[in-house]
Amino acid sequence: MFQVNENYLKLPGSYLFSTIGKKVNAYSAANPDKKIIRLGIGDVTQPLAPAIIEALHGAVEEMGRAESFHGYAPDLGYEFLRNAIAENDYKARGCDIAADEIFVSDGAKCDCSNIQEIFGLENKIAVCDPVYPVYVDSNVMAGRTGVYDPKAETWSDVIYMPCTADNRFTPELPKETPDLIYLCFPNNPTGATVTRAQLQEWVDYANKVGAVILYDAAYEAYISEEDVPHSIYECEGARTCAIEMRSFSKNAGFTGLRLGFTVIPKELKCGDTALHSLWARRHGTKYNGAPYIVQKAGEAVYSEAGRAQLKEQVAYYMNNASYIKDGLKAAGFTVSGGVNAPYIWLKTPDKMTSWEFFDYLLETVNVVGTPGSGFGPSGEGYFRLTAFGSYENTVEAVDRIKGLQL
Amino acid sequence: MFQVNENYLKLPGSYLFSTIGKKVNAYSAANPDKKIIRLGIGDVTQPLAPAIIEALHGAVEEMGRAESFHGYAPDLGYEFLRNAIAENDYKARGCDIAADEIFVSDGAKCDCSNIQEIFGLENKIAVCDPVYPVYVDSNVMAGRTGVYDPKAETWSDVIYMPCTADNRFTPELPKETPDLIYLCFPNNPTGATVTRAQLQEWVDYANKVGAVILYDAAYEAYISEEDVPHSIYECEGARTCAIEMRSFSKNAGFTGLRLGFTVIPKELKCGDTALHSLWARRHGTKYNGAPYIVQKAGEAVYSEAGRAQLKEQVAYYMNNASYIKDGLKAAGFTVSGGVNAPYIWLKTPDKMTSWEFFDYLLETVNVVGTPGSGFGPSGEGYFRLTAFGSYENTVEAVDRIKGLQL
Repeated sequence: MFQVNENYLKLPGSYLFSTIGKKVNAYSAANPDKKIIRLGIGDVTQPLAPAIIEALHGAVEEMGRAESFHGYAPDLGYEFLRNAIAENDYKARGCDIAADEIFVSDGAKCDCSNIQEIFGLENKIAVCDPVYPVYVDSNVMAGRTGVYDPKAETWSDVIYMPCTADNRFTPELPKETPDLIYLCFPNNPTGATVTRAQLQEWVDYANKVGAVILYDAAYEAYISEEDVPHSIYECEGARTCAIEMRSFSKNAGFTGLRLGFTVIPKELKCGDTALHSLWARRHGTKYNGAPYIVQKAGEAVYSEAGRAQLKEQVAYYMNNASYIKDGLKAAGFTVSGGVNAPYIWLKTPDKMTSWEFFDYLLETVNVVGTPGSGFGPSGEGYFRLTAFGSYENTVEAVDRIKGLQL
Repeated sequence: MFQVNENYLKLPGSYLFSTIGKKVNAYSAANPDKKIIRLGIGDVTQPLAPAIIEALHGAVEEMGRAESFHGYAPDLGYEFLRNAIAENDYKARGCDIAADEIFVSDGAKCDCSNIQEIFGLENKIAVCDPVYPVYVDSNVMAGRTGVYDPKAETWSDVIYMPCTADNRFTPELPKETPDLIYLCFPNNPTGATVTRAQLQEWVDYANKVGAVILYDAAYEAYISEEDVPHSIYECEGARTCAIEMRSFSKNAGFTGLRLGFTVIPKELKCGDTALHSLWARRHGTKYNGAPYIVQKAGEAVYSEAGRAQLKEQVAYYMNNASYIKDGLKAAGFTVSGGVNAPYIWLKTPDKMTSWEFFDYLLETVNVVGTPGSGFGPSGEGYFRLTAFGSYENTVEAVDRIKGLQL
């Protein structure tokens, strides 16, 4: 008789954003006349930029003609895209990353959840708390996290690095030595960042203890301050300890188009085994490439027109971020984030729990956010709002919240 | 110090098609004047049908306007596509499959390799021999296959079901009881099929011993004979023992567009645990949906125009299959397949090994095929040719092979 993967059964509840979706749908069904504004899931709302639309149409045309039809993509991505990434995201910033160290994929969520697979099950992970749920959940599914404590909402074999107001939402080096360290800056959910000097400390630490940093830089396009690194490879020594994951979702609005990439420098090794080879083997065996037309759209992100249009798009969302941040501050909320990231992290009022505040906002002003506790125990008492709505909706949501009698 | 997943290191050599690609590239670089005809990898060559191109352009337009922009897709796929699949692929054939039992993905290769993840590591797999390498390799990576015997080219914990000329390339029920049974019909690589009555035996067997059949029906569009089932759900009792995986790659030329789906009936359970829930959880946590524009293209596959155009496309490839089959037969080769599948399976001449014949064909007539031994030990002495080339190339390749002094 077959058996299921018992690790799946250890997962408490459903995936955070599925739960939010269900709650909102239920409220909406019961109150069809209410206009709900969604600042919960970090999904973009602006249409794809004209340069991207043009590239997509062009690539679709190619697929309709025998002489320019494209079948299976190269395992690791088309060279035109890998070259554009290496050139623009890395070489232009002085980072020594070659095109063949870049693995194109259908998005950072897949990469973030699949990357743990090339590591041993005995490896111990360290995560920020609060944190994007995928890092921990994918390790739970693999059986790497030990026993769940439902009261503390923590796993026995995970090293949690609390990010609280006390440390300005940036983690300290862990006391117990981890093997894999998940870091995400600019951070989801808190919007916090680290300076280049702070990130260098992490790189030095990882090299010292023989850990790998899994660096999620999905939000780098939102960085506005000078000393905030866009890539971990801006730090010396990162080539021997860091894997970086990037997305086209937030900088170019590809949440519904699906494109991302992972960088694994060839020097990153365990003994003689290069992680680059293992990930290449995984791609070759379990993946069949991102669609040609989407990779062409990705190339357009780096064109002159694409860059100009996307700069505007990011500015649009960051204008929303400022409006949320300033508005809530004026209304007496304690807020952070929103300067180098499209997320605003706020303290719930009146000692409400995160989910109490979620229900309260949904029911009283019909605004959807994300409960901080959904990202980990240190997120309790916090709440995330995203800047990815339309400007009109963002203004209306903030004005509704400002009108609350708190 | 971090450790790698040791299971990866057990994999012998590289992924079959990567090896072929490297060999062909090396030959091509050394002989730039030779015109190589590739009938190796099962990649399509005909352009996307007009109905699909039209749907793609339309969906791209939608993505360029705020009011019709689509961000993250629903976890399990858009309803318009799941409904079209349920209606056309299942209900129209009398199969009782609901839209919410269908999980849309970016292709059958990902689904085939990821599906093992929801099962326990102690489960024992059974595979046909020869077989599509992904089934075994993905289980090796998970640590489910025991020790590799390099001489026999088999794994200690895998049940191999030889498919040879003696049993007309269809497996017999295994002597040792498996937990997971991979079946693919019409078969890759042999092109063999089973009748509905034969498949019913497998379903009855799986239900009796408590095994799950992982049924890969990627080639169902090529079925020409009446009593060959298109879906395992044409068999009674399949809802309690079978998962079916399908692709848009071969019936609609989506190898470069990426779309597939997996069906898990809600009755398929281990105790109280529905496999449907586990796979839904995996999708929710580790996947972010197939692109909207590609799902719209998938919908067009089921439109009246799409169906008519794709029927022609399949007929085009099957005309190639006949040409290969008849031509090689006339030249004295022993061949099978090519009637309900786009693959021709031939016995190598003069007792050559599969790789010897590969090199011989590549070097003497510049035709690329796939060595049968790459699919498993019982594939030794066999060779696969695909019907997915252009008609002109197919004719030229066959004529070149016919001209060999064998």
